Amino acid sequence: VSRPAFLACDWGTTNLRAWVIGEDGKVIRSRDFPLGVSKLAPGEAARRFRDEVRPGLVAEHIPAILCGMIGSTLGWAVADYLPCPVGLDALRAGLLTVDREVRIVPGLRTEGRFGASDVMRGEETQLLGWLQADPSRRRGRKVVCHPGTHAKWALLEEGRVVDFMTSMTGELFAVLAKHSVLRTDAPPSDDAAFDEGVAAAGDGGALQSRLFSVRTRIVADGAAPDSSAAYLSGLLIGADVVSAPRTLGVEGEPVAVLGEAHLCRAYQRALRAAGVEAEIHDGDAAALAGLSALQGETVS
Amino acid sequence: VSRPAFLACDWGTTNLRAWVIGEDGKVIRSRDFPLGVSKLAPGEAARRFRDEVRPGLVAEHIPAILCGMIGSTLGWAVADYLPCPVGLDALRAGLLTVDREVRIVPGLRTEGRFGASDVMRGEETQLLGWLQADPSRRRGRKVVCHPGTHAKWALLEEGRVVDFMTSMTGELFAVLAKHSVLRTDAPPSDDAAFDEGVAAAGDGGALQSRLFSVRTRIVADGAAPDSSAAYLSGLLIGADVVSAPRTLGVEGEPVAVLGEAHLCRAYQRALRAAGVEAEIHDGDAAALAGLSALQGETVS
Repeated sequence: VSRPAFLACDWGTTNLRAWVIGEDGKVIRSRDFPLGVSKLAPGEAARRFRDEVRPGLVAEHIPAILCGMIGSTLGWAVADYLPCPVGLDALRAGLLTVDREVRIVPGLRTEGRFGASDVMRGEETQLLGWLQADPSRRRGRKVVCHPGTHAKWALLEEGRVVDFMTSMTGELFAVLAKHSVLRTDAPPSDDAAFDEGVAAAGDGGALQSRLFSVRTRIVADGAAPDSSAAYLSGLLIGADVVSAPRTLGVEGEPVAVLGEAHLCRAYQRALRAAGVEAEIHDGDAAALAGLSALQGETVS
Repeated sequence: VSRPAFLACDWGTTNLRAWVIGEDGKVIRSRDFPLGVSKLAPGEAARRFRDEVRPGLVAEHIPAILCGMIGSTLGWAVADYLPCPVGLDALRAGLLTVDREVRIVPGLRTEGRFGASDVMRGEETQLLGWLQADPSRRRGRKVVCHPGTHAKWALLEEGRVVDFMTSMTGELFAVLAKHSVLRTDAPPSDDAAFDEGVAAAGDGGALQSRLFSVRTRIVADGAAPDSSAAYLSGLLIGADVVSAPRTLGVEGEPVAVLGEAHLCRAYQRALRAAGVEAEIHDGDAAALAGLSALQGETVS
């Protein structure tokens, strides 16, 4: 068995996923902690890491590398947003050392296109890790979609993140399904209703009008109330998959959907309905590859 | 002083506004009751009307005409949605008698344009009342915007409502400002930030991406957190004023903005920024005109 070399942590808003990586570069063990930064009091991150996370995983004092919202104002310390384009070297050069051999990955920013900047924190490590996992991905141009609360659409060229855009798709679903006249307790598991929602998204324009169809198909057209969540999900994801690539200037190009399997499948379904090639890739594996690549070069 | 002839009530989701109309057609008195249908238990509307509303306004037993959500499944009894086009005569023919001389105005429906019907309930009375108030409005074609939780955009031709569309603009603002990462307690009263939001709405497409700029202009660009509410309001209203007329096929036509003064001013500001003529008209006056026109013919 290989000896532990370093800890890799994807420390996000709601969860912390940690891996112990051996000297041979392989995962020795992994564990999730319910210590997302939204649950931490100010200044608490360092102590919880020292008292719970590290001792919960490994006896030795080994280096650690952290990505995600732990590098935000809500986290341990603020790691910069690096301006795009950014490759692995620039990300490595931007690592923030917060404690003895504990380093945080910076986020990315672009100028944005709506009069305000755009930012990401955490996804950059997955994007560059995904590129590391296969040299052919670092040639030419790739479009990656990372679904989620704040979905990210990224354009990668020659191994670097050159542009990206955020869509509040997951959060819109959550607040509308919970707090609006469209609220529903049913799970979004009805494929036919999902597809109906994707179709209702049309060209993605007039979203605030299209959304009212979630209600009228029930109250005026007699659709089953239980189908609302899937329809709403299809409508929002359907609007995202047509609007975001067009806005990012990559309309019609194949999309690598990178992230959590269930969300990726929904995006793949909507992309295929729009006639776009879409292949699913595992987000955790990409995060681990990115953290390992960032740490690997520096410990070697 | 004229003797009371009938009660006119605009009985909506959150409020009930009632007027006592004299035999001369003039308002004798008016009063608001905190009895919106969202606050009523099932079956309670008839009793509250009989025990509180009518005796709170007038001693005599006079006829009453009610419009709004009181005609929905949440209200007193369900008045149909009439298919467009609908003029005053059709609306009058569709009145639902629920009690001795108490009648409820039906709603309207269209086939919609996103695979589901669209509906309104309450605004039809204001639209047709607005037409009644000036014969010139009943000639040719008019575009009316009724801002609100569920904003209505209506196309009127030769005195009838021929088509309309709903935008969930007000509700999106409410749930995002209260429950999302965009939440803010500040009032949306900053004109410069409102205008900035209108500009950020662009052509109204990719709304779920544009919305993220509400956050990034604060966390990445240093805008004042207090300006978020006005910016969000401008972004949503800005997207509505470019998307809805285009979708309804009335792009660039002058718009009559009908409703509550404060909301109407925000829509007027956004419409003018888009180069569209916009004139404000009082919603309560239009509701009263509509209810009076519906009642007037039948008591004469």
